[in-house]
Amino acid sequence: MDAVTQLPTVGMIGAGQLARMTHQAAIALGQSLKVLAGDPAESAAVVTPATTLGDYRSVEDLRGFAKGCTVVTFDHEHVPQEALKALVAEGIDVQPRPEALLYAQDKQAMRTRLAGLGMPQPRWAPVDSISDVEAFGLPCVLKAATGGYDGKGVWMIDTPADAQAVLASGIRLIAEERMALQRELAVQIARSPRGETAVYPVVETVQTDGICTEVIAPAPHLDPATAAEAKRIAETVATELGVCGMLAVELFQTSHGLFVNELAMRAHNSGHWTIEGARTSQFEQHLRAVLDYPLGSPETAAPYTVMANVLGGKPGGRRLDERLQHLLAEDPAAHVHLYGKAVRPGRKIGHVTVCGDDPETLRRRALRAAEWLQEGE
Amino acid sequence: MDAVTQLPTVGMIGAGQLARMTHQAAIALGQSLKVLAGDPAESAAVVTPATTLGDYRSVEDLRGFAKGCTVVTFDHEHVPQEALKALVAEGIDVQPRPEALLYAQDKQAMRTRLAGLGMPQPRWAPVDSISDVEAFGLPCVLKAATGGYDGKGVWMIDTPADAQAVLASGIRLIAEERMALQRELAVQIARSPRGETAVYPVVETVQTDGICTEVIAPAPHLDPATAAEAKRIAETVATELGVCGMLAVELFQTSHGLFVNELAMRAHNSGHWTIEGARTSQFEQHLRAVLDYPLGSPETAAPYTVMANVLGGKPGGRRLDERLQHLLAEDPAAHVHLYGKAVRPGRKIGHVTVCGDDPETLRRRALRAAEWLQEGE
Repeated sequence: MDAVTQLPTVGMIGAGQLARMTHQAAIALGQSLKVLAGDPAESAAVVTPATTLGDYRSVEDLRGFAKGCTVVTFDHEHVPQEALKALVAEGIDVQPRPEALLYAQDKQAMRTRLAGLGMPQPRWAPVDSISDVEAFGLPCVLKAATGGYDGKGVWMIDTPADAQAVLASGIRLIAEERMALQRELAVQIARSPRGETAVYPVVETVQTDGICTEVIAPAPHLDPATAAEAKRIAETVATELGVCGMLAVELFQTSHGLFVNELAMRAHNSGHWTIEGARTSQFEQHLRAVLDYPLGSPETAAPYTVMANVLGGKPGGRRLDERLQHLLAEDPAAHVHLYGKAVRPGRKIGHVTVCGDDPETLRRRALRAAEWLQEGE
Repeated sequence: MDAVTQLPTVGMIGAGQLARMTHQAAIALGQSLKVLAGDPAESAAVVTPATTLGDYRSVEDLRGFAKGCTVVTFDHEHVPQEALKALVAEGIDVQPRPEALLYAQDKQAMRTRLAGLGMPQPRWAPVDSISDVEAFGLPCVLKAATGGYDGKGVWMIDTPADAQAVLASGIRLIAEERMALQRELAVQIARSPRGETAVYPVVETVQTDGICTEVIAPAPHLDPATAAEAKRIAETVATELGVCGMLAVELFQTSHGLFVNELAMRAHNSGHWTIEGARTSQFEQHLRAVLDYPLGSPETAAPYTVMANVLGGKPGGRRLDERLQHLLAEDPAAHVHLYGKAVRPGRKIGHVTVCGDDPETLRRRALRAAEWLQEGE
């Protein structure tokens, strides 16, 4: 709690762009977000004075960090269960609770739990040998049970040799059927400890090489029954898993209906559009939820909002500042978010959001804006 | 310039709520705002790691602060002219330039200059004796030529005794006629060194005891000719005075037309509505202007936006955190901005913004929200 204002102090483990944008939301709520960073140059560490340097795998570091925090939450899901359980045992308020977070950390646990809830998902199985994979059937997708993100830890498998190469790494894997997708969707939902939920409109996400490059909110031409089904899935998962904070449910839309792809229990790339596109941003909503504050309105602030990610371009191009100025001149109503990160090819270094009436016009504007920012020489 | 991103570093002299909200905007542009604070507990100092402690009246402190800044700008207009001119002489990019800022620092200089430009303003005169005041005519308004804000430095004068009490302070004064107002308006305009301007819709401001308590954007029922005249005044003042950054022009609307009341060359309370209500917030716009970036769109993001200030309530009331939670439950779509300041009666500790279609409904919501946050027990 802050000594002057008596307002709460939220601690966030991790200091990437999600923590950076959460700090912006925390400022509005009268707070200054405290972050646990591995390096003082991390995205959030360079914009908040309340940075603690430490290792998110160390109970000792986590314990020191949590001191004085009203609640501790996450910018990523890589904190070990044992460490989190140790904090909880010491009376520290960790949200989401480790028992819920497990399902965002471990895809095998998630698939097992969602099956128990009767949630629609791709056919799947744990695999640890080539015969398991062959028994499951090729082609398929192999996924690392833990630790994957942005397409890392996901492999498209066509042949036994493809599978062998992944199996050789020795990591725990699950196999999933490769579905014929119409498109990918996502739903953001917030849930607070008192059980209040707030669900955002269903969005369409566009992936390129496993990385989300574009989000259109709400998903265009989505029939109301499918939208309702997506929201029902999100509500069920949030409530049954006891999620606290933001939950992102990534979905496959197919000719046979919706299937759950992934879960994230934190602010998520598919929700960045909410900063300008919704009455309450996912970052403020996450803070409200983990503090057990009343949740904010998830209503849209514009008919359509499109977000495009900015990926680091080829080295040797024009300076980012020059590119930024070109974009600002080109599209004066674009909302630019840069993450303060060094530019590396393919790395998410920012995003651009545009709001308006026509999703196709907005997509063109957002993609062009992202290209302006990321082009090499 | 930042070593990692090669993006610019903006230095802001002062660390109040304007700097605090500018930091939020700077984060989106890939920056971390550097602030010069007198005290580490100041509103912006508690949310940015780039805080320098120092005295804004000391050339030495300002020089140290400016080191490494791409440009230096202001959260308030109290920096002495001599200090600013010394910085400029040393090659530091100060925006707005001292020659322009003078007109926001000194009301006598401002009135003289605007008269030269033919701008409509109340009848006025410098006064330094009771006979000057009596020659000007009673009733009148006395204003401190420098240093006033939020109703401080403004006195309503009905009798010679009232005037005598103010004259006794020995400060430099101007007298102004007391006009019969229909209402007060304000216009925000940004201007960059290259001469680009962007003007926001004219807003209505509501003052209580000399403090702005409410802003309605755009001003309801404003006839197009008056709106155009307000914008023409803002354009003329910004251009002729060589303003860089945000300029707020406060106006009196009377049955005889518009009259210029005050100027501020920085983000201003009458522009807080732009955070959610316009495509580019005044805070981002100020950064873009002082950096000579292309300016952002000043278009509205909603038909109407209303902002209400939150003033510190009576001591001994409920904790701010409890009041905040009541408000969030009461109005889930309200945008709350708290400034991280200790609560003192009458002190601006935050503001609330609501967006929607009907200005009267929005005013009720905004004022009720502000009351929730500021009520004593």
